[in-house]
Amino acid sequence: MMDDAIISYEKRPDLNSPVLIEGLPGVGNVGKLAAEHLIDEMGFTIFSRIYSKHLPPQVMVDEEGLVELVNHALYYRKGEKGQRDMMVLTGDFQGLTPEGQYVLSEEIVKLAEELGTSLIMTLGGFGMIRMVEEPSVLGAVTDPGLRGDFEKLGVTFRKGEPSSGIIGASGLLLGLGGLRGIPGICLMGETSGYFADPKSARAILEVVSGYLGITIDMAKLEEKAKQVDELTSRLRKDLEESEEEERRSEDLRYFG
Amino acid sequence: MMDDAIISYEKRPDLNSPVLIEGLPGVGNVGKLAAEHLIDEMGFTIFSRIYSKHLPPQVMVDEEGLVELVNHALYYRKGEKGQRDMMVLTGDFQGLTPEGQYVLSEEIVKLAEELGTSLIMTLGGFGMIRMVEEPSVLGAVTDPGLRGDFEKLGVTFRKGEPSSGIIGASGLLLGLGGLRGIPGICLMGETSGYFADPKSARAILEVVSGYLGITIDMAKLEEKAKQVDELTSRLRKDLEESEEEERRSEDLRYFG
Amino acid sequence: MMDDAIISYEKRPDLNSPVLIEGLPGVGNVGKLAAEHLIDEMGFTIFSRIYSKHLPPQVMVDEEGLVELVNHALYYRKGEKGQRDMMVLTGDFQGLTPEGQYVLSEEIVKLAEELGTSLIMTLGGFGMIRMVEEPSVLGAVTDPGLRGDFEKLGVTFRKGEPSSGIIGASGLLLGLGGLRGIPGICLMGETSGYFADPKSARAILEVVSGYLGITIDMAKLEEKAKQVDELTSRLRKDLEESEEEERRSEDLRYFG
Amino acid sequence: MMDDAIISYEKRPDLNSPVLIEGLPGVGNVGKLAAEHLIDEMGFTIFSRIYSKHLPPQVMVDEEGLVELVNHALYYRKGEKGQRDMMVLTGDFQGLTPEGQYVLSEEIVKLAEELGTSLIMTLGGFGMIRMVEEPSVLGAVTDPGLRGDFEKLGVTFRKGEPSSGIIGASGLLLGLGGLRGIPGICLMGETSGYFADPKSARAILEVVSGYLGITIDMAKLEEKAKQVDELTSRLRKDLEESEEEERRSEDLRYFG
Repeated sequence: MMDDAIISYEKRPDLNSPVLIEGLPGVGNVGKLAAEHLIDEMGFTIFSRIYSKHLPPQVMVDEEGLVELVNHALYYRKGEKGQRDMMVLTGDFQGLTPEGQYVLSEEIVKLAEELGTSLIMTLGGFGMIRMVEEPSVLGAVTDPGLRGDFEKLGVTFRKGEPSSGIIGASGLLLGLGGLRGIPGICLMGETSGYFADPKSARAILEVVSGYLGITIDMAKLEEKAKQVDELTSRLRKDLEESEEEERRSEDLRYFG
Repeated sequence: MMDDAIISYEKRPDLNSPVLIEGLPGVGNVGKLAAEHLIDEMGFTIFSRIYSKHLPPQVMVDEEGLVELVNHALYYRKGEKGQRDMMVLTGDFQGLTPEGQYVLSEEIVKLAEELGTSLIMTLGGFGMIRMVEEPSVLGAVTDPGLRGDFEKLGVTFRKGEPSSGIIGASGLLLGLGGLRGIPGICLMGETSGYFADPKSARAILEVVSGYLGITIDMAKLEEKAKQVDELTSRLRKDLEESEEEERRSEDLRYFG
Repeated sequence: MMDDAIISYEKRPDLNSPVLIEGLPGVGNVGKLAAEHLIDEMGFTIFSRIYSKHLPPQVMVDEEGLVELVNHALYYRKGEKGQRDMMVLTGDFQGLTPEGQYVLSEEIVKLAEELGTSLIMTLGGFGMIRMVEEPSVLGAVTDPGLRGDFEKLGVTFRKGEPSSGIIGASGLLLGLGGLRGIPGICLMGETSGYFADPKSARAILEVVSGYLGITIDMAKLEEKAKQVDELTSRLRKDLEESEEEERRSEDLRYFG
Repeated sequence: MMDDAIISYEKRPDLNSPVLIEGLPGVGNVGKLAAEHLIDEMGFTIFSRIYSKHLPPQVMVDEEGLVELVNHALYYRKGEKGQRDMMVLTGDFQGLTPEGQYVLSEEIVKLAEELGTSLIMTLGGFGMIRMVEEPSVLGAVTDPGLRGDFEKLGVTFRKGEPSSGIIGASGLLLGLGGLRGIPGICLMGETSGYFADPKSARAILEVVSGYLGITIDMAKLEEKAKQVDELTSRLRKDLEESEEEERRSEDLRYFG
């Protein structure tokens, strides 16, 4: 029988109690945007790809016409001057089925345990179903001792929120990690949920950088956020104009 | 491959031929309401959580911002003065797929056998698709010898009812338990099926308390039942009023 | 992990190269009707029940309020004076998923092999999507040598029919049986497919009785067929009358 | 538990670093048409059938009334005078579920490895959602070294195309083959995607024949392509006429 996951190593890093940061697709794509920005800006190196029958049955084609089987990729970065070692997990898809999501998360948590992971941080969006100007960051933890440090960084812990729980890898990595004794926190950036939200990703990364004592250049995320802002304000203007026009033609109709 | 279920023990109880009582979500949420009331009122202690890839892939967040992987929880209570030892199984979800429901129930039945379970009682609602003032309790058994004792407590056994069978854990625990030689009964409280029904849960618990010789304080269930009654009578009044109003405006129309 | 199937024996029969006859639910319920009639009329004895996580997750409740886990049941009959030993497989459901159907059929074929089965006959309906007065019986075989004997009994073999293949247990038992070297034939009775069709079941059983040299009392199937005929002719009359009425009221409307 | 796949050998060929060519159903049925034409015209011999619980649960019935369990079939051809040995994989269905597609492709890639396969060529259609007069052939490879040879044969490699990746066996055999070190190329013929497209299949086979140094008689594919062309031009004429007619009746309406 085919294994649930095939874990291939491009390089086996020697890490010291690393922090694992997850950012897979989800609400507002907040987690994935944050994870990819972190990888791009902080000099991460890919070290492993996880292939699985629980991911979509397809290959992606790159700029050179080369195919790559759909996967979850793991990157690492050795900490500088007292910083902690870090790993980032990202990918184009979550597991396709509920059972597949469990199986994939369990594989990742097992790997994390083998690599001596000391903390799991999962990143995601918290859908507000309304426009959000200044996104707050909501937190949920497996270990009450983690709350204090994150509250100092502005993270809020709201009673029983999100009320529907945390779904997918961001929830399962914490839950299954907790069963193996690895503490974890989920950071959720408020987002409308209507489009990919770099502003929310940035809000999360501010917390990550504060907690881990690293400096992340936010220029590219800010640029993307500006583009989204322009797009939405243009969209809003267009909507207002077309409403205005409609009103006028309705007014005319009364005279017709 | 990930195990079908991860059974974690918070405490391993020493039980003497216990009775296992199941109350998971279902029609009118009758079984779960009854099970939770029993746990709250009779001083039950949690001793095990069952995690499974057949449950939803998510964590719930509690009042303190702590995450808890979705699970089935097992509670126990040592019997006082000649009472039987009891266990209660409850949780927020049933298995997600038909196969998952089988697998979860089989894990629970295996555990029940290991703990020396002498009787499985599954609790649920029997949907009437009409309002029910005084809910009867319907029974179905794996062992004809069980009928008499429950008939004395007012439980009715109707030929071939429910005609569509008993679906989910309440059915499977009996069926799979029977294959292992553990006798079982399903107690189904009549319920409209339109909303959570504490009155039906109470009717079931009267049977449970009678059979097991325990006294259950029903005050909180009665309070909940009263709230539901008030809600439904207010709803009915509102409906009648809006119908009345409609009739009047229709009458007026004839004069218009 | 839970086994794919749990095979429980009520009695282990000693059979001599038996013929296995399958009749599970399907088009016009033809196969199941035929199998159950055979069991009832020819003095079959149940010897095994097959429980499986690939069947619906439920128990059925019988006339005595006793629960029975959903299953496939196997019956046998020792042949009299030179007749062949026979087994009949029936049940209330097919496997729930395509994969589940494969797994169940493989379990049954393995069991059939263990019991020395010399021929698999699967019974089903061939949906015509029109009323059928005198249902023919269509055949399909895994072994060309079987055709002759059945053609003598009036079975027709039409090129590439059914064009969509034979789906479910009736197909899989032949296909998977063939891989184990057990020859097989599928007998499909023509049926409208609009309702349970005892006339079609009878047509199939005529072939079965002819081939196996047994005499089957058809009185009860004929009675059922008469009831269906009455029902459909009443239905037809009602339809004609309501059409007639409609025509009249339309005529009146022109005068209105 | 039933194996994921049952591989039966009709004949075990002795092959020398063969090329495996896949053509299963897909967009415009281009891959399957090409694979079947290759088998018919080049004197291939069937040597293996792969049965699987991940294929549809049914048997097909042939012209003689013989049933055949749904399968993937493998054919081979020993190369003549310096030609490479070839295998072709085809069948009536892809795996039914995403997971089933992975499992089947993994079984095939394992088999390919055992047989010493040196190259996997997967054939498919590239849906243009518009009529295509002269279909180009698009390529995607697992190994950049393969590009040059195919570009010389007119295959184009467009940046990141197909943008949605390559789905099903044509993608997975490359991806999973790559993990085992077997190089691979997918050849995609442009096609409208509206109907089975022999012209696109022909375009692909021109590349295959050029690369492998074989001569394929294209007469039958050309005949089929002519039939499709006639059909589509008749369809187009009918559409134009009915539009014309509609226009006229609309014109008349204005005079009415």
